[in-house]
Amino acid sequence: MKRHDIAIIGSGPAGLSAAINAKIRNKDLIIFGNNDFSAKLIKAPKINNYLGFNEISGIELKENFQNHINSMGISIINERINNVYAMGDYFALMVNEKMYEAKTVILATGIEYTRPFKGEEQFLGKGVGYCATCDAPLYKGKVVTIIGYNKEAEEEANYVSELASKLYYIPMYTSDYKLNPSIEIIKDRPVEVIGEDKVTKLILSETEIETDGIFVLRDSISPGQLVPGLTIEDNHIKVDRLMKTNINGCFAAGDCIGKPYQYIKAAGEGLIAALGATSYLDSKSRETLK
Amino acid sequence: MKRHDIAIIGSGPAGLSAAINAKIRNKDLIIFGNNDFSAKLIKAPKINNYLGFNEISGIELKENFQNHINSMGISIINERINNVYAMGDYFALMVNEKMYEAKTVILATGIEYTRPFKGEEQFLGKGVGYCATCDAPLYKGKVVTIIGYNKEAEEEANYVSELASKLYYIPMYTSDYKLNPSIEIIKDRPVEVIGEDKVTKLILSETEIETDGIFVLRDSISPGQLVPGLTIEDNHIKVDRLMKTNINGCFAAGDCIGKPYQYIKAAGEGLIAALGATSYLDSKSRETLK
Repeated sequence: MKRHDIAIIGSGPAGLSAAINAKIRNKDLIIFGNNDFSAKLIKAPKINNYLGFNEISGIELKENFQNHINSMGISIINERINNVYAMGDYFALMVNEKMYEAKTVILATGIEYTRPFKGEEQFLGKGVGYCATCDAPLYKGKVVTIIGYNKEAEEEANYVSELASKLYYIPMYTSDYKLNPSIEIIKDRPVEVIGEDKVTKLILSETEIETDGIFVLRDSISPGQLVPGLTIEDNHIKVDRLMKTNINGCFAAGDCIGKPYQYIKAAGEGLIAALGATSYLDSKSRETLK
Repeated sequence: MKRHDIAIIGSGPAGLSAAINAKIRNKDLIIFGNNDFSAKLIKAPKINNYLGFNEISGIELKENFQNHINSMGISIINERINNVYAMGDYFALMVNEKMYEAKTVILATGIEYTRPFKGEEQFLGKGVGYCATCDAPLYKGKVVTIIGYNKEAEEEANYVSELASKLYYIPMYTSDYKLNPSIEIIKDRPVEVIGEDKVTKLILSETEIETDGIFVLRDSISPGQLVPGLTIEDNHIKVDRLMKTNINGCFAAGDCIGKPYQYIKAAGEGLIAALGATSYLDSKSRETLK
């Protein structure tokens, strides 16, 4: 398996800035995210505090970022990493059943504004999960509910529906849903996860459904869930001024490490993280030469 | 005397980013620097790691910065601050004999790449100084040497030459020097400051001159000299992740707080410092209301 120098998770300003700097330093990088880069960015009507761009819309700034990465030959892998495991001298990045490897990781996952549902954290691992395809075999012949925040969740729902006896899909967005006919779509707002030892039902604002499993497929999962063993402080990844986390070779940048949640702050930190990863790689290769 | 909300010292990317963010937050700001913004910036042939601008020259990036601050009505005061004194609930900023006041200060002074001359630090305050006009009265009828790093030093030289019996001017740049005819220009490289209790002479690479005082007028003076009491660590201003220094109300950003010395890192930190100063001001005004 190809082992990349640097894997960047997230395509907001922090991730993109990390990518261009890794590229300039001639590292083999891979960046995971989505083609809109950042939902927050493209929705911004006007940005006037990114030095050099005055009164620019989020879409326009996004286009400038796009041109920048395109001209450097950087393209974004449209996949969502579910787990990152520190394996000693490399990292394993899991995308459902697929795996990537990298010597260093830069977490630029942004900040999740949606709070967990009532009961969600309590039943995590006891019927609540964040990767439907990973855990699908456990739900063969059972009732599964998927709360989907984006179109990618539809693919997971289709996959799981082949195994489950019944699949409810609760979309948290509006779109033309491309779902298998057997899937029942419920357009309602989830309120609380209920159970005893394990999940038994999901209460919504206007109805409730009995279910054996609930998968919450948000745009991003929290860094603590993403990278087991990562130190979190006040809901943010703890880093030092050089963007190092507590895990060797793992760096973080942008909103996920703390306020203020601002584009140029994130971009500046992305640069620092990329240079940190670069010198980590260089010191490792010097060690190997010894 | 007018007391500004925020005084920003330095007009590189950190200072400019602090300025636009202070302005957006509706604070009364004053920014000291020069019209070229940053000597390093305008000399950069190509910058490709400032996210959003690809393969841009330093001059072009400077023009983008210029347009940005112009459109916000920010203009740069072309004066060099010699000292900043923390007065408790405000700061006094000295420009030779002139004074400015501000409730908070953001240091964005960059990093001085030129090392002190041999003997310079040893004789600081014993014939070596950094503000010729401030100390001019001490040198009435005496021999003074000015080592000037920019055209502004010429004005100081002209002023001091009216009082001194003899003035040597050693330019560290090439230009049309606009100096009084009584001033003797020496085009040579200073090597060492010599003296016993006080300075007696300056040794240059090809000659030496007897002098009672030596003023070294660099583009910036070190932050430790600029702000008495400021904590310095490894030659950089010590700050926390929110860009706070050890002095209440005093923030710092950019190259002066540490590596990497990169534009977007500096700009990101300038934003953080401005927001830090803003919330400091807001908390102070809430205290006053109590």
